[in-house]
Amino acid sequence: MRLIIGAKWSSTWTMRGWLIARLSGLAFECDTLWLSRPDSKARLAQVSPTGLIPVLDHDGFLVTDTLAIAEYLWELAPGSDIWPADRQARAAARMAAAEMHSSFAALRAALPMNLVKRWPVANGLPSNVKLVNRPGVPAEIARVQDAWRHTRARWGAGGPFLFGAAFNAADAMYAPMASRFRTYAVELAPDAQAYADAVLSHPLVTEWIEGAHAQAREVGWDAAVAFP
Amino acid sequence: MRLIIGAKWSSTWTMRGWLIARLSGLAFECDTLWLSRPDSKARLAQVSPTGLIPVLDHDGFLVTDTLAIAEYLWELAPGSDIWPADRQARAAARMAAAEMHSSFAALRAALPMNLVKRWPVANGLPSNVKLVNRPGVPAEIARVQDAWRHTRARWGAGGPFLFGAAFNAADAMYAPMASRFRTYAVELAPDAQAYADAVLSHPLVTEWIEGAHAQAREVGWDAAVAFP
Repeated sequence: MRLIIGAKWSSTWTMRGWLIARLSGLAFECDTLWLSRPDSKARLAQVSPTGLIPVLDHDGFLVTDTLAIAEYLWELAPGSDIWPADRQARAAARMAAAEMHSSFAALRAALPMNLVKRWPVANGLPSNVKLVNRPGVPAEIARVQDAWRHTRARWGAGGPFLFGAAFNAADAMYAPMASRFRTYAVELAPDAQAYADAVLSHPLVTEWIEGAHAQAREVGWDAAVAFP
Repeated sequence: MRLIIGAKWSSTWTMRGWLIARLSGLAFECDTLWLSRPDSKARLAQVSPTGLIPVLDHDGFLVTDTLAIAEYLWELAPGSDIWPADRQARAAARMAAAEMHSSFAALRAALPMNLVKRWPVANGLPSNVKLVNRPGVPAEIARVQDAWRHTRARWGAGGPFLFGAAFNAADAMYAPMASRFRTYAVELAPDAQAYADAVLSHPLVTEWIEGAHAQAREVGWDAAVAFP
């Protein structure tokens, strides 16, 4: 099995798909497809039925979309860490994952994920204050925190994640959001901050972020601004 | 089991959720929650953890988001008509459903679903030509048709739907799109038109549309412009 991924520091869906593939416990390799090179479009068309990454390549059968990948891997590895074992908790995890999947367009456009830099920076880009206050963004930042709070209130006892001690696909879906809040120094309520910190400290997430730094160094991308 | 729905003529997610609930084969009742009344917000907050409709109420356990509802019902009724029986076809159906779930924002904003009227109309609203040509909309109309074509080319043999003879949750996800194309007289490629026609002729879809007309008549909403 092979996961075709984009730039680790900026591709949020790649990050989610990789985390979920790891939660499946199944063995897989990664191939990077750089999206900004002359042959990118042609290569992407070859491997991605929808033009989206990541793509899960399972012996030549191609699956795109992180939710579809999650369900495909769940069928291959039922009872893995992708979803909770309890049926109602599993439905709640799918609700949380689905809201992230379809929502927060303003926030995602204003605050692109960047795992190797932090704002404000001194290179002419807009300050984080301007970005965070763009139309629609404050309300979406509030809604993300409400979704975390609501889910944790019902399911989060016994641990720091949405469903308690175990990090699952719903947390994976929100990991890029937690990273955005850190990158752009978004002020969160204490409970939301504690959750975001827990997500960004999870071993799978730190492994991914270290990979993003390594990848950015390889291509000389993070030379301008060092990550503290 | 109970499905809390919005206005049948305009609530696309309600239409999708209802179609999928019917595909499960499970018995359920419907309650309408009107979203534009003085007490709507308070009532919605009582029944919907995310503020979204439809809501599936299963003995007091509430599930929102149509994809999460689809997976919940699929677990209650595995092997039902929600998803295809073949594992790869099922993954492809989830891919198609997931793309509809997260995409086509420009098209959805420009061409709101309206099951009881058609454009252009003579009441001062913009003509369908203006709506269809808004920024981003033509490309999304093309992509919807490509998604249908690609899915049918691989899986559609033996019938008019995305996966052949059986109408499943992926078709249900795209049913409001087919209705928009008819309402606004969007010109489609012949294969896409044939698919859209098949969806809008499916017995479950026609039953829903008849319900939308009945509901609109009850509240006096469709008095101004008759549906041809």
